[in-house]
Amino acid sequence: MELLSQHACFGGLQQFYRHASTEIGLPMRFSVFLPPQALTGAACPAIFFLAGLTCTEETFMIKAGAQRVAAREGLILITPDTSPRGANIPGDSEAWDFGVGAGFYLDAIEAPWSAHYRMESYIVHELRALLTQFLPIDTERLGIMGHSMGGHGALTLALRHPGIYKSLSAFAPIAAPTECAWGQKAFQGYLGKDNAVWAKHDASLLMAQQTLAPFPQGILIDQGEADQFLASQLHPHLFATACEKAGQPLTLRRHADYDHGYYFISSFIEDHLLHHKNQLTT
Amino acid sequence: MELLSQHACFGGLQQFYRHASTEIGLPMRFSVFLPPQALTGAACPAIFFLAGLTCTEETFMIKAGAQRVAAREGLILITPDTSPRGANIPGDSEAWDFGVGAGFYLDAIEAPWSAHYRMESYIVHELRALLTQFLPIDTERLGIMGHSMGGHGALTLALRHPGIYKSLSAFAPIAAPTECAWGQKAFQGYLGKDNAVWAKHDASLLMAQQTLAPFPQGILIDQGEADQFLASQLHPHLFATACEKAGQPLTLRRHADYDHGYYFISSFIEDHLLHHKNQLTT
Repeated sequence: MELLSQHACFGGLQQFYRHASTEIGLPMRFSVFLPPQALTGAACPAIFFLAGLTCTEETFMIKAGAQRVAAREGLILITPDTSPRGANIPGDSEAWDFGVGAGFYLDAIEAPWSAHYRMESYIVHELRALLTQFLPIDTERLGIMGHSMGGHGALTLALRHPGIYKSLSAFAPIAAPTECAWGQKAFQGYLGKDNAVWAKHDASLLMAQQTLAPFPQGILIDQGEADQFLASQLHPHLFATACEKAGQPLTLRRHADYDHGYYFISSFIEDHLLHHKNQLTT
Repeated sequence: MELLSQHACFGGLQQFYRHASTEIGLPMRFSVFLPPQALTGAACPAIFFLAGLTCTEETFMIKAGAQRVAAREGLILITPDTSPRGANIPGDSEAWDFGVGAGFYLDAIEAPWSAHYRMESYIVHELRALLTQFLPIDTERLGIMGHSMGGHGALTLALRHPGIYKSLSAFAPIAAPTECAWGQKAFQGYLGKDNAVWAKHDASLLMAQQTLAPFPQGILIDQGEADQFLASQLHPHLFATACEKAGQPLTLRRHADYDHGYYFISSFIEDHLLHHKNQLTT
C-alpha cells in the first residue's frame, strides 16, 4: 500500500492509496477516510462506497460531503476505483458505460475482459483483507453502499456474499440490470450470453430468490424522481417487488425534483451513514 | 441570464447560469444556490464566494459542502467564475497562475488584459446588480468570502467598496499579494509596474490605511498550518498585523495538519457561513 496523498478533514484523515492488486493484475487506487476515533487506534465500523459510471476513487470523497458525518459517528469510509485502469484492452475507453470506469463490480468471464476485470473478487476479498490488516477496522461491522452502477454493485455484492456486509443502502441503483441497456451491454460484454449467469448479478433476481430476509433490519434506497436515468435504466420498483416477495424490509424513498448527481447524494448522505451506523452498532 | 442547469439540493436549488457580461465583453458563467426559504420568495441574505486559481463557478458548489448549512440558515450562495474565458489573448492559458482561471478579482489596466479582465467591476457592480434584480436577495445583507486568490478577492473587494458587503471571511487568502510571487506576477501583468497601483489591491496594505475598523464585528480567516503555499504565498501574519494597526477585530485561526484544498474548506465552511449569518442578521 503506497500512500499517495493525505489531507486533514474534519479532524480525521482523507487518504489516497495505490497498491499492486493480485486479483486485477494491475495497480489499483482507492481512498479511505479515517475518522478521529480511528486515529487513536480504536476499531471502527467501515462502510464501502461503490461509485457510478465514469467515477474514480476520488469522486465520492470530494463531492458527497460524507466526512462530516463519518467523523462525528466514528465511521471509516472506503471507496475503490470503478474499474481496472491500464489494461489497455482494445476498445476499453471508447464508451463511458463499458470498460474503463465501468467495471460493474463483477468478475468478467469473457475474454479479453476476464484477465483483469475482476472487481468483485478484488473488492469483496482482496481489498477487504488488505484494509482490515492495515487499518483499525472492526471486521464484524462492515457496511456497503453505492450509487447507480455502484448501487448495483452494493446490492449484488451484499446478496452474493452473505455475512460479510451487515448493512446495505444505495442511491439510485441500477436495480435490475438484466432489464436495462446499461446492464445488458455490460453483462453481455463481461459475462457472455447465458441468461442464467446474468441472473446471478441482478439484484432484483437475487432478492426474489431469498427465502429469508438477508437484511432483517432493512435496506435503504433513495431515488430522485427527476433522475434522467430512472425510467430507462434503474427500475427500483422491480427491486421493491422482489423485496416484498422475499419479506425483505425496504425503505425506498422517492424524492421529487432530485436528479442522478452528487447534489442529490450529498442531500441524503447523512441519512445513509446513520442507517449504517445504527445497524452496525446494534 | 440563461439557466444552464439546476439540481435539487437540500430542499433548495443549485443553479448554473450563463449571461453576456458587458464589463467582461464575453459570456460569463456563475452558480447560485437558493435555499428553500428563497424558493418561497423570501428575501434572503446572500454570500458571494470567490474561488482560487484554476477553479470555476462549479468548484465551491460541488466540493465545499456548503449547501447543507445554507439551506438550514436561509442563505443564498453565489459563485462567479475566476476569470474571463474565450478572450483568446496570446499566452492566456500557458500558466495556471495568470490569465484564464486567474483573474485576481481586479480590473486590468495593462493591454491586452484591460479589454476583458475586469473581474472587479464585473463582480462588485454588474453581477451584483443583475442578481439582485432576478433573485430574492436582501441587498442590505450581502457577505463576501473566498479561498486563496479568492480570499485576496474577498478581502480587497470588501475593503475597496465599503458598505456593499456587510460580512467578510476567507480561507487561506493571498493576504499580502505585493509580497508574494503569485501576486507580483499577476499585478505586473494586469496593473503594470507602479507600486502605488499595486498597493490599492493588497489587502494588508489596504487594511493598514484604515482609520476606523471597516468590519467592527470582526473578520474570520482560517488557515491550515500544513498548507503548501502558506510560507511562500499567503502571509496571513501581515494581514493580522495590519488589522491590529487599524483596530480591526480579526479571528485568524491556524489549524494544525490542514492543507490548502477543499478537504480543509469543507471542514470549516459551517463556521464561515454562521459567521456571515450572524453578522448579516444583527
